[in-house]
Amino acid sequence: MSVQMANTGEILEHLIRSPPQSQHAIAYNYLVPNIKGLENLVKIMDAEGATAETQGTPSKPATRTEISFFTAATEAFCKANTNCTIAESLERARPIVELAKSRNIRVRGYVSVALGCPYEGPDVPPSKVAEITASLLEMGVDEVSVADTTGMGTAPRTLELLRTLKAAGIANTDIALHFHDTYGQALVNTIVGLEHGIRIFDSSVGGLGGCPYSKGATGNVATEDLVHTLHSLGMHTGINLEEMSKIGAWISNELGRANESRAGKATLARLEGSCAL
Amino acid sequence: MSVQMANTGEILEHLIRSPPQSQHAIAYNYLVPNIKGLENLVKIMDAEGATAETQGTPSKPATRTEISFFTAATEAFCKANTNCTIAESLERARPIVELAKSRNIRVRGYVSVALGCPYEGPDVPPSKVAEITASLLEMGVDEVSVADTTGMGTAPRTLELLRTLKAAGIANTDIALHFHDTYGQALVNTIVGLEHGIRIFDSSVGGLGGCPYSKGATGNVATEDLVHTLHSLGMHTGINLEEMSKIGAWISNELGRANESRAGKATLARLEGSCAL
Repeated sequence: MSVQMANTGEILEHLIRSPPQSQHAIAYNYLVPNIKGLENLVKIMDAEGATAETQGTPSKPATRTEISFFTAATEAFCKANTNCTIAESLERARPIVELAKSRNIRVRGYVSVALGCPYEGPDVPPSKVAEITASLLEMGVDEVSVADTTGMGTAPRTLELLRTLKAAGIANTDIALHFHDTYGQALVNTIVGLEHGIRIFDSSVGGLGGCPYSKGATGNVATEDLVHTLHSLGMHTGINLEEMSKIGAWISNELGRANESRAGKATLARLEGSCAL
Repeated sequence: MSVQMANTGEILEHLIRSPPQSQHAIAYNYLVPNIKGLENLVKIMDAEGATAETQGTPSKPATRTEISFFTAATEAFCKANTNCTIAESLERARPIVELAKSRNIRVRGYVSVALGCPYEGPDVPPSKVAEITASLLEMGVDEVSVADTTGMGTAPRTLELLRTLKAAGIANTDIALHFHDTYGQALVNTIVGLEHGIRIFDSSVGGLGGCPYSKGATGNVATEDLVHTLHSLGMHTGINLEEMSKIGAWISNELGRANESRAGKATLARLEGSCAL
């Protein structure tokens, strides 16, 4: 794309004016660091006469504007990532959720480092994650993404966390799981989540993401790997794995990054007719 | 190492003459394509006055010489890999097992493409794998490595295969599982194997292996990833993950290959003190 976009506001403006052609409704999610961020987005929507949800037509697909914000399960990470305490981050979230709700904007909250913190180690108390998740849901957040930011999560600790969330009265339908494959456990932990009844999982095509300043940090689990796993279990995702694999290779190449998806690379190799022994 | 070794025989000769220093007993496994291959090894052992098992002393670790050979679960792959039918490969195995047993050499048989074949596709009949595995064990093979050579294996099909092996009267203790992480399913399938009671899993440090002539082909699941997963489940492997991760980085570098172990790279990044967000 030749459009150079400097910030979230410009992306929103661009997408309102020229929504990409698609056969399917698309939701665009904007990360807002604070109430000011959301106010800016709302201002742009007002100026463009746009609403959070648009009705699709044959020539224009339906779109939905959503927002998300971060909090964290440990004080040390919350301080490093958002420069405030957990309690302060929840107080910051309150007006964000209120304004979003008044504009029919769907809100997603992230609880970072839910299964391991680079500062406080792997043993993050599940009860703390449950407490924060419940606070966000009570506030009106539509969905909480419980994030294994460091990839330290293991099958037993993922299960323990999910059991604790359930015991705290949190519905599976209100939670998404967000795994990073840094230690190779993302798909194993996904299976634990699936068996527990979770049906929303975050991923990124080609495994993009991560922190460019932090050696060893990796992006989210690759969408292609997640989709291949879900399909292998007989689940439907609505995603064409072959096309998604091509997208993963394309975007990785555009960004000059290694394609981190194993299923994506294997699918492409198979399509190219070479055997994968 | 400065020693240039041209073939299996030279490696065996070298290891008999100068066994590497180690605190632990080590087993060296030699792939024998046919009876001639084993006869050559036995000749060398005789010439060196070596037995298959040596007693360890403080200055010399115990070593064990083992052999392995391949058969396959599909006719097309057996033909391509060993240039014979499955039945012929089993007939070739018989004298190998007999000679090995007479010399107290432990024998391992591999059943390749047990969960997917590059020529015949993913639906390899589990009953065929069970039949071949049972034939090998009846012949006197000590252990059969059931190999997902292509990485096409999925959790449901791995479970189906293990149930079929059990129904055929094959003991879990007689089987090893051999996964390739080509589609990212190796650890998921390992969990299925563990839950089924399998306790022997093949892997290679840094994920080495694969076919250099086949784009998209990858090596075995990385030892570091497997060990991290087993440790995360509270199991003991006797392996120091940090040291294994260093070995994986070293050998990958020596061979000019990418280190394919996620847990290995993440462990090294953690050791180097950089955060892995």
